[in-house]
Formats: sequence, structure tokens, C-alpha cells
Amino acid sequence: VTTRDHGDPGDAPSTPPPLQPPAGSARPSAAEQARTIAASTNAATLATLTVTGDPWASFVAYGLLGGKPVLCVSNLAEHGRNLAGDPRASLSIVAASSDSDPLASSRITLAGLAFQPSDTERDAARVAYANAVPAAGIFLDFSDFTLWVLGVQRVRWVGGYGRMDSATGEQYAAATPDPIAPAAAGAIVHLNADHPDALAAMARAFGGYPDTDVAVCTGIDRHGLDLRVHTPRGIAYARVGFQERLESADQLRAATVKLTHAAVANPPVA
Amino acid sequence: VTTRDHGDPGDAPSTPPPLQPPAGSARPSAAEQARTIAASTNAATLATLTVTGDPWASFVAYGLLGGKPVLCVSNLAEHGRNLAGDPRASLSIVAASSDSDPLASSRITLAGLAFQPSDTERDAARVAYANAVPAAGIFLDFSDFTLWVLGVQRVRWVGGYGRMDSATGEQYAAATPDPIAPAAAGAIVHLNADHPDALAAMARAFGGYPDTDVAVCTGIDRHGLDLRVHTPRGIAYARVGFQERLESADQLRAATVKLTHAAVANPPVA
Repeated sequence: VTTRDHGDPGDAPSTPPPLQPPAGSARPSAAEQARTIAASTNAATLATLTVTGDPWASFVAYGLLGGKPVLCVSNLAEHGRNLAGDPRASLSIVAASSDSDPLASSRITLAGLAFQPSDTERDAARVAYANAVPAAGIFLDFSDFTLWVLGVQRVRWVGGYGRMDSATGEQYAAATPDPIAPAAAGAIVHLNADHPDALAAMARAFGGYPDTDVAVCTGIDRHGLDLRVHTPRGIAYARVGFQERLESADQLRAATVKLTHAAVANPPVA
Repeated sequence: VTTRDHGDPGDAPSTPPPLQPPAGSARPSAAEQARTIAASTNAATLATLTVTGDPWASFVAYGLLGGKPVLCVSNLAEHGRNLAGDPRASLSIVAASSDSDPLASSRITLAGLAFQPSDTERDAARVAYANAVPAAGIFLDFSDFTLWVLGVQRVRWVGGYGRMDSATGEQYAAATPDPIAPAAAGAIVHLNADHPDALAAMARAFGGYPDTDVAVCTGIDRHGLDLRVHTPRGIAYARVGFQERLESADQLRAATVKLTHAAVANPPVA
């Protein structure tokens, strides 16, 4: 999954390979990751074109209509004038992260064409923006503010170091945000604080690292857990999958318990 | 200072005007605000142009060489290819904020031309990036990563609702980051928790609001304090200036005490 093949001058960190093939390594698709990140916040950076075709980066708040970002910007502001002059736009959204290294964060770029919605789509876009941006009541109906929807044609996802992929607009539209995402941060804290033995057992049985001493959960999604695995051979990154894709956050606890029981019942053959 | 003249449909909040002319309402210039925001973090969003001239927004880490952003991006990444193809670029930087409303945050756009520094400038840029981005050691010398410096030609600052201004590249280069900024958040908490009477006295004597009941500090910079003032006429926003511009954070406490004494000694004539 992870590649660090960047013309390595020789001193890049190396990770010990798995000793057994990992089981159940399903992950969210790039489109699913992108929908999840887009649904996780209401602030982003917009790139538009100035009248001379220069790229202009500006901070915006947004709501979501399906997966399509909804903006409400002043026609007097530079990005508002830019969109009126050329509808090409892209939006960079960064997922909240507790890591002090900004480059470890997950982020996406959604690129396409902005348009002014009409009729029922305008009504829905207005509601989507107002729901996502609590302060919108101050300016949503000011006559110089315009609602824009970004029709997404191309998606780029970067999931931290060495994890990245692209998706089409169609794949993005068809994907759904991970229903586990709002519960993930709390679950990670709980698992690391109270269930280190369970995490180590999962890494040994299913993660490909039977020599795991300690495993730390670094991510959870509807398909499984990301683990940082400490072994006598060094630190590696492993994946353990749930037995089936979760459809709601209230399935998370039972699925994790089930995975733990399966791991304890199936210790690796050393 | 604040204008909300945005084709107001009639229900926008209004603020009571000052009853006396405010004293000492000096504020940081847009260029100074921009230098301060740029110095406050190491993560931003870059806008570049794709091969077809489309705007591409992407998350980046950065360091600062003087006020010029330094980037280190992979030539394999879309933004790296974009910069190599067209040096026009802009960078949006958002100051950290404790406000739940993203649009209340301060942010800037720095626009100009990116270039690859050479000789001693390259060495300095490399150090600036490595100092700002602790993880840079992983990739800074990978052969497919390139250092870029953004030559800033144009600056736009937005300081939350209704506060905005522009600066030239020359003004930006000549300005300095506010030395008070790293101490501001702590000072604001302290003043609001322990010295509400001092803040109210300042607002009454110097802020133009002799009818202040309660004043809450919402910002501090080298030139003075921003106050949210609660009066029988409604809520307003006031500014009180220090008697001289501060040159270091360790002057902050004495300057605030001096301002408080002056306010108490000069109560407003009702």
C-alpha cells in the first residue's frame, strides 16, 4: 500500500515486511475517503482564476449537496468575481488531525466547474449551506452574495505519507461518507487506552505481524483498523479488516469485540 | 472600521455607534497582519495552474524566508508538475482560531511567482523549510523533491467579518510579524478571567463607549486591544490602543497595566 520510492538518498526509514499475508485488508476507496473528508468539516480553500488567468487561493466555508460543495460568496470579493468570470474551480479540504506533522493529515482536492443552481436545486443548496455554516444567516440573503455549487469532475485524495489515489467525478458521486467517521476519534482513544492486548492480538493474527509486541490504533473506518505495529524488527504499519463492512457507527463496538475474539482464538503459528 | 454594507435585506445586526471619539485606535496594517498570520503556522493551501490552465488547490506545508513562503514538493505530485509548467501561484493561510464560526477567522492570500532558489538563497530556503516542518528530514533531499520560493507580488488580508484590506508585495516585504502574537491567546484568557473591571474601564475611557457595562477582550496585538463592548444600547466592537507600539512580548504586561491606570484615572464625562 505504502510507497516511499521518491529517489531515496539512502537514509529514509525502512519498515519490516509482514511475515504472513495479512487477512482482510479491505480499505475505503479514494472516492469513499474523499466523501468522508468532505463531510467532516465546513471550511476549505478554493482555487479560482483571476481575470488574467492567475490562480487565486482563498478560504471559504461550504456545505454539501450530495457530495457537491455549496459555496456562498460575495460578488464583491475576489473569488466571487473570479467564479463569475470563469467557472473552473477546485477545492482543497483537510481532515482534522491530532498529528503535529501537517503532512500526516488526510486531504482532498475536488476539481470541476462551478455553477449557480436554480429552482429546487437552489433551494436545496441554500439549505445545505445554512445547515453547514451556522453564521450563514448573517449574509445568506444579502443581495451581493451568490450561491455556487461545484460540479466535481476529478478527485485527488492524499491520506498522509505515501497513500494517495485519484477518483472520477462519477465514482465520487456514487460513494458515500463513512458512517463510522464521527465515532472514530473516540474509539481510537478508547482502544489504545483500555484494550492494548486486543490490538496486539489483532496485529499478530490478522495483520501479518505475528512478532508484534505492541500495536497502536491510528485509524478506524467502516472496513477495519489501521495499526502501528512495534516488533523486534522495527516499526511497521498494518491493517486488520472487520468481517463485514459496517453500515452505522453503532455497529463499531460489536465488530471490534468480534474481531478481538477471532484474533485470540486464532493465534499465529510462529 | 467594520462595514456590513452587503445589500443588507434589512435584518442584519446593527451596532450602537461610539458616544465619544475613540482614542488611540492604531491597528496593524494589512501587510503587518499578513506577516503575522504567515508566521503563525506551517500549513497552507497552494493554488497552481494545471497544464490546461485550470486552478488546482492543494494542501502544503511551508517555511518562511523573510516573508516569502518556501515549499518543498514532489515533482511527481500534481502541484509540483504545475509549478514546473507555470510559476504563477498563490497561497492561502488561515490563522488558528478558537471561534466555532470558520468565517470569523483571519486569513490571507499571498499571490505571485514561484521560483527555484539557487546558491545561498537555496541553502537559506532549505533551512527555513526544515525548521518549520519537523518531518522534512524524511523527504527534503529526495531527488524528486524541489524547493520553491513564492515571490509575493500581491497580498489580500481578511480579518473576519467586514475587516479586509490589500497590500503590495513591497509593503509585505517591509512589514514584520507582530512580536506579541505568540503571547496573545494566553493574555486574552488572563484578562477576561481576572481583569474584567480593567477592560470595562478601558472601553469607557478610551474606546468611545462610556456606557460600557461589560467589555470582553477578543484580540491583542502590538498596537492595542480589541474589545467586544456590552452597553444598554447593544453590543459593539471597540479598540483601545497602547500608548506606544510594543516591540516584544515581554512589554505586554506593563503596557496593559499602564493603560488600565490611565483609564481609571480618566473616567469619561457622562
